[in-house]
Amino acid sequence: MEIGKEQTALQVRSLVRKNGELELSLVRVPTPAPAADEVVVRIDASPINPSDIGLLFGAADMSTATQSGTPTNPVVRASIPEGLMRAMAGRIDESMPVGNEGAGVVVRAGASDAAQALLGRTVAVFGGAMYSQYRCVKVIQCMPLPEGTTPAEGASCFVNPLTSLGMVETMRREGHSALVHTAAASNLGQMLNRICIEDKVGLVNIVRTQQQEDLLRSIGAKHVCNSTAPTFMRDLTEAVSATGATLAFDAIGGGKLAGQILTCMEAALTRSATEYSRYGSTTHKQVYVYGMLDPGPIVLNRSFGFAWGVGGWLLWPFLQKIGLAAAQKLRERVVAELKTTFASHYTKEISLAEALRLEEIAVYAKRATGEKYLINPNKGIAA
Amino acid sequence: MEIGKEQTALQVRSLVRKNGELELSLVRVPTPAPAADEVVVRIDASPINPSDIGLLFGAADMSTATQSGTPTNPVVRASIPEGLMRAMAGRIDESMPVGNEGAGVVVRAGASDAAQALLGRTVAVFGGAMYSQYRCVKVIQCMPLPEGTTPAEGASCFVNPLTSLGMVETMRREGHSALVHTAAASNLGQMLNRICIEDKVGLVNIVRTQQQEDLLRSIGAKHVCNSTAPTFMRDLTEAVSATGATLAFDAIGGGKLAGQILTCMEAALTRSATEYSRYGSTTHKQVYVYGMLDPGPIVLNRSFGFAWGVGGWLLWPFLQKIGLAAAQKLRERVVAELKTTFASHYTKEISLAEALRLEEIAVYAKRATGEKYLINPNKGIAA
Repeated sequence: MEIGKEQTALQVRSLVRKNGELELSLVRVPTPAPAADEVVVRIDASPINPSDIGLLFGAADMSTATQSGTPTNPVVRASIPEGLMRAMAGRIDESMPVGNEGAGVVVRAGASDAAQALLGRTVAVFGGAMYSQYRCVKVIQCMPLPEGTTPAEGASCFVNPLTSLGMVETMRREGHSALVHTAAASNLGQMLNRICIEDKVGLVNIVRTQQQEDLLRSIGAKHVCNSTAPTFMRDLTEAVSATGATLAFDAIGGGKLAGQILTCMEAALTRSATEYSRYGSTTHKQVYVYGMLDPGPIVLNRSFGFAWGVGGWLLWPFLQKIGLAAAQKLRERVVAELKTTFASHYTKEISLAEALRLEEIAVYAKRATGEKYLINPNKGIAA
Repeated sequence: MEIGKEQTALQVRSLVRKNGELELSLVRVPTPAPAADEVVVRIDASPINPSDIGLLFGAADMSTATQSGTPTNPVVRASIPEGLMRAMAGRIDESMPVGNEGAGVVVRAGASDAAQALLGRTVAVFGGAMYSQYRCVKVIQCMPLPEGTTPAEGASCFVNPLTSLGMVETMRREGHSALVHTAAASNLGQMLNRICIEDKVGLVNIVRTQQQEDLLRSIGAKHVCNSTAPTFMRDLTEAVSATGATLAFDAIGGGKLAGQILTCMEAALTRSATEYSRYGSTTHKQVYVYGMLDPGPIVLNRSFGFAWGVGGWLLWPFLQKIGLAAAQKLRERVVAELKTTFASHYTKEISLAEALRLEEIAVYAKRATGEKYLINPNKGIAA
């Protein structure tokens, strides 16, 4: 055990200044001694999720980014367009740590039995500031991983797995029987596809390229619709009709897609209708927007009657709503199927310093399907 | 009693032809003999609500309307833009009666005690085809009006009173404590204002002109925001903050207003926040769109976090959801307060034939605030 080493840790920080400047840097912070119900985890793997990128870059225009500092202590600065500073009001002049989830080894433990039991174990951790060499966290923030699981394999145990499980759970709880998903070739989309195959739930995948379509079909997806195809609306109506989907999860947000999904659901529902209703089908059709890949306005062309809803959806409020016991069941499934259903794939493993290099930012900031990065905060640090 | 007279009745009909032509006309239809649980009502008053106008004109461009026929048997024809014919698919070549609600006198009754008890009574009726001289309806479709109530006073017992009560009931059932309402100077808006004053519920009224603002203030409205004022967003945020409103009912739909309401709710919620959250306030903010005054796209500029929803709202599914007993309570309140809280005002009373004259259509089709028409299907008919 590496007693002492963990007493200070390098950590990524994101700072928005009042003058509209974003600054990314590494700071050295003390690691607190663990309280009775706490442990110190050496973070060996933490994914860069779209939600992390949102916090990391704020509203900055990263095409304005400049590099300074040194290779081991890089600094990145970029400008935030004036019109977007209102949205930054809550975080001005506050240096913020980043990284929602990660995994690593417990190197120190508090006095409680529960904490002591984790000593030496590889655990997945949730709770922010994971782009950090060490983190002192509560025992309940940790999920012990089975023997033979590496930190890289356990790094994405929370956000994507619980979000995709949460979608299926929401479907069941709100009385729907099949799902539509957009940006469906993402890591999360592939997980959702595996869950739906396993649970025999109808899933309509919406993608934007032929490659994404091929990828999903190669892993067993039955319904894949390409939103750039001229036949998209017809294809989607057919797929929605075949599955009976009346609920969609949309990662994109901006543009017309959410409304198009509702329109196709309505068309599928009314084409078998025997009586005219000016108010449309009485079956409720719902789109939950859970991401912001396109931050532009959502444009709803109402051709889907009155039984519809569009709304925001976030994992954590959802978990709170379903309660501890139900959430625990979802977590247990993630651990049990970590190397199959919930396996994540990364293009590259980078260090904290590399995460603040413009050439790496240029790649991972695109949040492109299949270009997912893993940070290893202890990479290149002598053991 | 006028036995025999009610055996046939003139009725307004709306017909959409496959070639894109809308035709309005009067047809004479036989009045069925009432079954045991039915009565025949002579309809003396039926309002022209926005929802009736939707069915009457369909998607037709009424600026293309032409008049033919005779003064007592007029025919109106207008064209439906090709792009809107898809929405008409369900009603093509079907001659449809119009008129959601009305009131009149029971002139024949079926054999049951309940039906016989209504004979000679003035009743409010719901159930379509009210732009008709006589209607054979079930007893449960009738609401007997108190002595001394005229059919004109009871004509609007259902749509506006139950919709405005339904808004307040929805607010309570979904855990909100105050309301925002758009197009708030309408007959419905004035009712809602009276209900909220009586029930001590905070109400933010959104209007488009100074006159509408003055009108609402003159009947006791405390919060009135003019969406055409340069200070609108600030005014609305203040009013939402003062009332704590997190639920809005929007009659307009098209445009940016629904999103602006959410933005102001979020601003009111977060300005007292002590901690930055990139996901915004955790308080759910909801806009229900219950009308289509602007049929254009709904444009949502997301600056209101992830705890939000926009959706359709309709009276009848709502009443089904709350169940018979709860709905009956709302109806009883309407009857009890018909001449006060739920009083409607009409600009003009017209006959069935007059309802199909271009000069009248030009006025009532505007659905302008304060320009509401009442049809008396037996006006000008020798008693």
